[in-house]
Amino acid sequence: MPTVPLIEYEDASPAVRAVYDDIMATRGIDWVNNFWKALASHPDLLADTWQRLKQVMAPGALDPLTKEMIYLAVSIANGCDYCIASHTAAARAKGMGEAAHGELIAVAGLAAQLNRVVQAYRVPIDDRFEGPPAS
Amino acid sequence: MPTVPLIEYEDASPAVRAVYDDIMATRGIDWVNNFWKALASHPDLLADTWQRLKQVMAPGALDPLTKEMIYLAVSIANGCDYCIASHTAAARAKGMGEAAHGELIAVAGLAAQLNRVVQAYRVPIDDRFEGPPAS
Amino acid sequence: MPTVPLIEYEDASPAVRAVYDDIMATRGIDWVNNFWKALASHPDLLADTWQRLKQVMAPGALDPLTKEMIYLAVSIANGCDYCIASHTAAARAKGMGEAAHGELIAVAGLAAQLNRVVQAYRVPIDDRFEGPPAS
Amino acid sequence: MPTVPLIEYEDASPAVRAVYDDIMATRGIDWVNNFWKALASHPDLLADTWQRLKQVMAPGALDPLTKEMIYLAVSIANGCDYCIASHTAAARAKGMGEAAHGELIAVAGLAAQLNRVVQAYRVPIDDRFEGPPAS
Amino acid sequence: MPTVPLIEYEDASPAVRAVYDDIMATRGIDWVNNFWKALASHPDLLADTWQRLKQVMAPGALDPLTKEMIYLAVSIANGCDYCIASHTAAARAKGMGEAAHGELIAVAGLAAQLNRVVQAYRVPIDDRFEGPPAS
Amino acid sequence: MPTVPLIEYEDASPAVRAVYDDIMATRGIDWVNNFWKALASHPDLLADTWQRLKQVMAPGALDPLTKEMIYLAVSIANGCDYCIASHTAAARAKGMGEAAHGELIAVAGLAAQLNRVVQAYRVPIDDRFEGPPAS
Repeated sequence: MPTVPLIEYEDASPAVRAVYDDIMATRGIDWVNNFWKALASHPDLLADTWQRLKQVMAPGALDPLTKEMIYLAVSIANGCDYCIASHTAAARAKGMGEAAHGELIAVAGLAAQLNRVVQAYRVPIDDRFEGPPAS
Repeated sequence: MPTVPLIEYEDASPAVRAVYDDIMATRGIDWVNNFWKALASHPDLLADTWQRLKQVMAPGALDPLTKEMIYLAVSIANGCDYCIASHTAAARAKGMGEAAHGELIAVAGLAAQLNRVVQAYRVPIDDRFEGPPAS
Repeated sequence: MPTVPLIEYEDASPAVRAVYDDIMATRGIDWVNNFWKALASHPDLLADTWQRLKQVMAPGALDPLTKEMIYLAVSIANGCDYCIASHTAAARAKGMGEAAHGELIAVAGLAAQLNRVVQAYRVPIDDRFEGPPAS
Repeated sequence: MPTVPLIEYEDASPAVRAVYDDIMATRGIDWVNNFWKALASHPDLLADTWQRLKQVMAPGALDPLTKEMIYLAVSIANGCDYCIASHTAAARAKGMGEAAHGELIAVAGLAAQLNRVVQAYRVPIDDRFEGPPAS
Repeated sequence: MPTVPLIEYEDASPAVRAVYDDIMATRGIDWVNNFWKALASHPDLLADTWQRLKQVMAPGALDPLTKEMIYLAVSIANGCDYCIASHTAAARAKGMGEAAHGELIAVAGLAAQLNRVVQAYRVPIDDRFEGPPAS
Repeated sequence: MPTVPLIEYEDASPAVRAVYDDIMATRGIDWVNNFWKALASHPDLLADTWQRLKQVMAPGALDPLTKEMIYLAVSIANGCDYCIASHTAAARAKGMGEAAHGELIAVAGLAAQLNRVVQAYRVPIDDRFEGPPAS
C-alpha cells in the first residue's frame, strides 16, 4: 500500500484536477496512473513534477522514444520496480519492439557489469578522455 | 593508481595482443584505453569482455549511438567516473551533439529523481502496466 | 516470504526475549516488528543491531525526529521498501506532518537528481569546499 | 576535468549571468561554485535547476538546516563526492556543528547497513506499517 | 508480472530448449527457474548469459560456494529481491549453514555502512594502499 | 581533502589512542590507516566501529579471507574507491592471489549485470525459492 492516499479525480481539488486534465490531454488518454495520484497529496510537487516531465521528455535533439529508453535504462540501473513496469509500457507505446527491448536490457546489463569492473580495478582515466571537446 | 598493473602492448602476451589488435582494428584507432590494459591481468576476462562488448554494442534494432547513450546513462546512474569520461567521449565520437548531451543528462537526472519519489510513496503498479504486451 | 523463519516471542530463547522486551519497553509498545523477528535467527546480530540502533537514534546534538527523517531519506535513496514503510510510520509517530513528508521527498528527490547531474558533468571540487573547517 | 567547459561570469550569456546574479544575491556571496558553471553549458537546465533548488530548499515545514542535512545524507548514500564536499560545507554554514555532523554520519551509516540487512532477510512488511495514516 | 512472457519448455524453440537442457543437466535438476524463462524472449541473451554464468561460477581459484556467497553479497548490496531469494537458496544448496548465512549478512551490512562512512569523510587513500602489489 | 581533520597518534586523546593501539596490536602492524584517523573526530563512532569490525571480521563459520572477499565485493558493488583500494590490499595480505582476484571481479561483475537484468524483466520468484529452509 502507498504511504499516502491515492487521490482519484472525483476527490481532487481544482488545482490537482487541472494537472490531471493536462496529463490526459497531453497523452491523449482518459486515465491517470497511480504515480500522479500519489503525488497529489503534495500538490506543489505534483504540478512541478508534471511540468518538468512534460518539458524534459518532449521532442528535442533527442526523439521521445530515445528519451523513453534512456529513462527506462536508468530505472533498471536504480532497480525501481514501478518505474520499470510503467516505462517499459511507455517505451512500447512509443514504438520499442521486442528486439529493441532485448538490446536495451543487454546494454544496460553490460554497463552495470563494466561500471563495477572498472571501479574494481581503479582504472585511471586516459588523457584522451579528459575534458570537454575541443571547440 | 589501479589495483593491477596496466599492461602495455609491448609487454603483453600473444593472447592479450590479439585482443588489443582486434580492439584497434574494430575501432579504427591505433591505441587501447586503460580499461583494457587493466583487464589484461586476467586474460580470460579480457577476451570475454571484449567479445561481448563488441557484440552487444553492434548495430541491431538499436543503432550504435542510441546504445552508447543508454550505456552512458547507466554509467551516470551508477556514478562510475571513468565510465562517464570514456562513454561521453565515445558518444560524442558517434555524433552526440551538445544539445543531445544536455537532454541526456536532463532525462537521466529526472529518472534518478522520480525513481526515488515513486519508491518513497510506495506507488502500487497500475493493472494496465502489468505484464507483457498482448500478442 | 523471508529467507529465515520469523521468530515469535513465545518461541524465542531467553536471550532473544530479553532483546524483544527491551525494544518494547524502550518504545512503550507491546509488539515487535518483523525486522527483529528475522534478525532473531542470528542472536548476536540481533543484540548488536538493537544496541546500536538505540544508541544512534537517541537524542543528542540532533533530535530523534531529525534523525528519523535522515534515516528515511537514506532508505528512499537506497530503495528499501520495508524500510520506507517502517520509517515513514516511525517519523509520523514522532511528529512528521504531511507537509514535512512532502518536503522530505522533494529534497530527497532533488538530491538524487543533482547527485547524478554533478557526476555526469564530472564537476571539479571548488577550493572553497575542500577540507575540514578552519579551527 | 569536467565533460563540458566551466563558464565563467565574464564569458557567460546574459541569460546565464542572470542566474549567476540570482544565486549570488540569494546566498549573499560574491562567487558561484563550479556546479553552476558546468550547468551553464545547457542554459535551460541551469535555469530550471536553480529555480527548483531555490524553492525546494527554502524554509517551509522543515527548516533550511534540516533540509540541508537530508540532502547531505542522500549524497552520502549515493556516494557523490562533489556533493558531499559542497553540502558538508553548506550544512556547516547553516549551523551544523561537529557533534551533529558525527551523528548525521552515524545515522546515514546505520540506515545504509540496515537497508541491506532488511533486504537480505526479505522481511515482510508488518500490517501496522501499511498504508497512509488514518484520517 | 514479468515484462515478457515466461516461456515454458513445451513452448520453447529448439535453441531455447537446448539451453534449458544444458541448465538442467549441469545442475542435475529437472526444472528451470523463472529467470531463464524470461530471458528466453531474447534467445541470444539467454545463450550468452548461461554460457558466462556456467563459466564464471565454475570451480577455479575460488570454490563454487565462495563464489555463490560473493554473488549473494552483491545481490544484497544492489537490493535485488529475486536474486537474494534465488542465491540464498543456491548458497544453501552448496553448503552454506545458518551461522555462515548470518555472518555473510553481518559482513555485507558492515561493508554497506562503512562504504558510506568512508565517503562521508572523503578519506584520502593511504600511500600503502596505492597500486598493484610489488612483484 | 577529508571533511574532517585526520588525527595523528601524537595529537590524539587517550581514548582515541587506546583504539589506535588496539588496531595496531590486533593487526600486528605499527601504523593506522586514514579511515580511523578520520573517524577519530567522532570518538564514539570510532570506538563502536572498530569493536564491530573486529568482531564481524573475526574467524567464525566463515574464515577471515572469505569475509574479506565478501567485504571487497560489496565495496565494488557500492563503488567506494577508498574501500576497494584498502580491502584489495587487505584481501591480498590474507592470501588472495591474482587468479582469485580476477574471479572475484568476474563474479561481482556478473552479479551486478544479472541483478539488473532480473529487475528489467520483473521476474516473479519461483515457489521453490520462497522462504526459509525446511527444518
